[in-house]
Amino acid sequence: MSTIPAVPATATTQLRARRLGIDTRQEAVLYMSRDCPVCRSEGFETQSRVKVALNGQAIIATLNVVEPRFGLVGDGEAGLSELAWRRLGASEGDLVTLSHPEPIASLTYLRRKMSGGRLGPRAMDEIVRDVVAGRYSELHLSAFVAACAGGGLDFDEVVSLTRAMVAQGSRLSWGARQVVDKHCIGGLLGNRTTPIIVAIAAAHGLTIPKTSSRAITSPAGTADVMETLTPVTLSVDHIRRVVERENGCIVWGGSVALSPADDILIRIERALDVDSPGQLVASVLSKKAAAGSTSVVIDIPWGPRAKIWSLDDAERLGRFFEGVGRMVGLDVRAVVSDGSQPVGRGFGPALEALDVLAVLQRAPEAPADLRERALDLAARVLEFSPDVRDGREVARAILDDGRAWAKFQAICVAQGGLRAPPRARLTHPVVARQAGVVADLDNRRLARVAKFAGAPANPAAGLVLHARRGEVVAAGEPLFTIHAESRGELDYALAYASAEGDLVKVEATRW
Amino acid sequence: MSTIPAVPATATTQLRARRLGIDTRQEAVLYMSRDCPVCRSEGFETQSRVKVALNGQAIIATLNVVEPRFGLVGDGEAGLSELAWRRLGASEGDLVTLSHPEPIASLTYLRRKMSGGRLGPRAMDEIVRDVVAGRYSELHLSAFVAACAGGGLDFDEVVSLTRAMVAQGSRLSWGARQVVDKHCIGGLLGNRTTPIIVAIAAAHGLTIPKTSSRAITSPAGTADVMETLTPVTLSVDHIRRVVERENGCIVWGGSVALSPADDILIRIERALDVDSPGQLVASVLSKKAAAGSTSVVIDIPWGPRAKIWSLDDAERLGRFFEGVGRMVGLDVRAVVSDGSQPVGRGFGPALEALDVLAVLQRAPEAPADLRERALDLAARVLEFSPDVRDGREVARAILDDGRAWAKFQAICVAQGGLRAPPRARLTHPVVARQAGVVADLDNRRLARVAKFAGAPANPAAGLVLHARRGEVVAAGEPLFTIHAESRGELDYALAYASAEGDLVKVEATRW
Repeated sequence: MSTIPAVPATATTQLRARRLGIDTRQEAVLYMSRDCPVCRSEGFETQSRVKVALNGQAIIATLNVVEPRFGLVGDGEAGLSELAWRRLGASEGDLVTLSHPEPIASLTYLRRKMSGGRLGPRAMDEIVRDVVAGRYSELHLSAFVAACAGGGLDFDEVVSLTRAMVAQGSRLSWGARQVVDKHCIGGLLGNRTTPIIVAIAAAHGLTIPKTSSRAITSPAGTADVMETLTPVTLSVDHIRRVVERENGCIVWGGSVALSPADDILIRIERALDVDSPGQLVASVLSKKAAAGSTSVVIDIPWGPRAKIWSLDDAERLGRFFEGVGRMVGLDVRAVVSDGSQPVGRGFGPALEALDVLAVLQRAPEAPADLRERALDLAARVLEFSPDVRDGREVARAILDDGRAWAKFQAICVAQGGLRAPPRARLTHPVVARQAGVVADLDNRRLARVAKFAGAPANPAAGLVLHARRGEVVAAGEPLFTIHAESRGELDYALAYASAEGDLVKVEATRW
Repeated sequence: MSTIPAVPATATTQLRARRLGIDTRQEAVLYMSRDCPVCRSEGFETQSRVKVALNGQAIIATLNVVEPRFGLVGDGEAGLSELAWRRLGASEGDLVTLSHPEPIASLTYLRRKMSGGRLGPRAMDEIVRDVVAGRYSELHLSAFVAACAGGGLDFDEVVSLTRAMVAQGSRLSWGARQVVDKHCIGGLLGNRTTPIIVAIAAAHGLTIPKTSSRAITSPAGTADVMETLTPVTLSVDHIRRVVERENGCIVWGGSVALSPADDILIRIERALDVDSPGQLVASVLSKKAAAGSTSVVIDIPWGPRAKIWSLDDAERLGRFFEGVGRMVGLDVRAVVSDGSQPVGRGFGPALEALDVLAVLQRAPEAPADLRERALDLAARVLEFSPDVRDGREVARAILDDGRAWAKFQAICVAQGGLRAPPRARLTHPVVARQAGVVADLDNRRLARVAKFAGAPANPAAGLVLHARRGEVVAAGEPLFTIHAESRGELDYALAYASAEGDLVKVEATRW
């Protein structure tokens, strides 16, 4: 940034704010006419970073120059993207002041990291502070993520990054000395154990205020699933009341500003589709520490189509989670689990909710794999409690004698009421073309079918799997059923499923 | 990109193209209404990468979703940024087809590089091909630059990157067996040796088809300087005729698509303000190889305010240039030079042209430092010729007996005519506040004064330096004079100069 000059006091200039309604996600963008006197006198051009100030608020925006003849913005106007508009709290016609921004000191650290250097706690703090303040452009954010990817961060740096992320957000605290939590690193379709685990742990008397995310690349997140059963967008006060009364909750984390830096960086990681162990650990643990947890179980599924491909890598990641956890004051226990095929039957918000309800209600058709996974993880959560020796046995008892189901209902009532999940208007089966044994289920491509069918935007949409690996199917027997709310989405999902073929691979039996 | 699904044939959708006139620089951007059926059915959201096709042309654009109530684009419209519009060759109302793009295979290599892996020649080729084809988003480009920064590329990778960049652009060839060239890594104000060196080398009979750049962060590039004297935007055919007749030329390289990958990456490097030796070497040498050069002198100034801070680093960079050059078939000779203070007197296109003319015309007021630097470098260029032993002596003779000046005039005539550089309408001196010795000249901040005065957009603008380091000045004596075309720019430059103080540092003499 040494090329951006400090600016004399005479050089600031004012333009009328104009809302253009353009959603540029997390980068504030400013649109100015090429003929605008400010552009010319300040030497601003497309991609220049410009300081935009209004009533004591100031943001840094990225400039897009607009050709005057298209009339998008006039010479005296500063067009603003939605984020810029919101951050400035602008009203139509407000006079905003434009100037060259002050140099961003932490970019020196970013450049050091890009050059392969190490960052100490202060450097991480300053970077994370500037990220949260919106001072970094998308290019800066991407460069930071890239420089930290892979083995880019060592153990100490991950600890520093985690602490810096926690420091830059709000932090919840609870009356209890011990606050338990669980988290799955994701990537496994239908692995919806959270509602069951929370019910079991809360029924045992543990404090478990669970904040969950919505789907980002999958057909459903835990918050989407729970929302088909009960309200999940709760105020911090409401969350507090639920937890005081029922020991636990299952709410959407988005309404609580825990680790806002993570929310920003995670978008970039997703756009780059880069999985970086250091950033994953910092991301998860910063959210847990900010949520006031003391003891966390981390579920790490591994398998050829999961996030982690080998048992070795899964175990190494588990130790990394536990080590960083210790440094930031969290008791972390990693559980390595089988991630070789989807879990449960339904994929999509309502369809997964039905699986969860079936397990809690001990229905005969309840998917056994979901039940077993939930019990395994609940066992580890319960073992945080000094009075529990055999967590598995305690968990099973709580589930089987109906205490978990009762607790789950009580939590939903406290959150605003329990309701039945919606059913899709249209369904259509996809059948086996030949008889044989189910040899493989493609986790990732099945997820796409559910998304094409409308999940998670349409909560009833998704698919229901009828066959598991190793089962024998006859020709013409349904392998899965697509659920959709509109004919177009159903056709779209079917077209994808038939074009791809072999989402459920049936091999002819040889005997 | 594994999360982007391949798309069934039924899923493409058409919208009417609409030109919005928004310059988004090198990222193609698509603007669609949130209510647009394509957005909804395809699950597109802001930052989605979308394939936009028209008449067999297809580009990948980044989506910005627009709130419908602001009326920027209608439900049936696809708003396009200037780059998207140009690349598609669109006309108003054309029906463009939108779909999910195919996965970009080379992103696997990008992720490998982010994770600290090495890239072989094929991986580099594929990355550079996708960069040139516009398949990378700005985030991808930034991640690539960050992953390659610092020591991110080893010797073999720099060689692969250089070759890949050459392969992805057009390549010039010349009749001559030996084609010489020179390049300065930049960062030193007024170091305008190129026109003098080309004149000397061409006068000696060497083939030297010089393509130069315009200013990017400095007050003048060689192309800007030459443009005050003669046309520099020439067709490849015209360049060829000039070089056939006069052995050399000094033209703007922008009209020749040499190493287009470099043009893209260099913008990102600039936005991140990251200097990466590997990328610098690949950038320079790819352009030289593509320009058909065989033998290149590289000027590496070093000093506390130059790009390279220590003699050691300058020499190491020089060896790096020479080594990579050998691998890509270029005879490279690096010259490490003094970069501790600006070169010549004038800074800004026309003012630097006057310095160049003064040296070529052997005027008594010609800046001695510019002359000496030009002779040093010309000597090294001449020594590529087997018949030259003492290059310095030959260069001096060609300059002093008027052959260089005659050749320079002939080149300008061949390019379209020699003209007198413009003079600025307004000038204003900045004077010494006290008597003393000039202790330091701030290269970077003096450059900003010249830019605030209007350089390079106004070719006559800039500043003229009256004092050199070590010279004694009286109080009130002018240190430099600002040249500007408008009162506003003059005031702006003066305000900056007085706010900053000590651009030319005068220390009271103690005796």
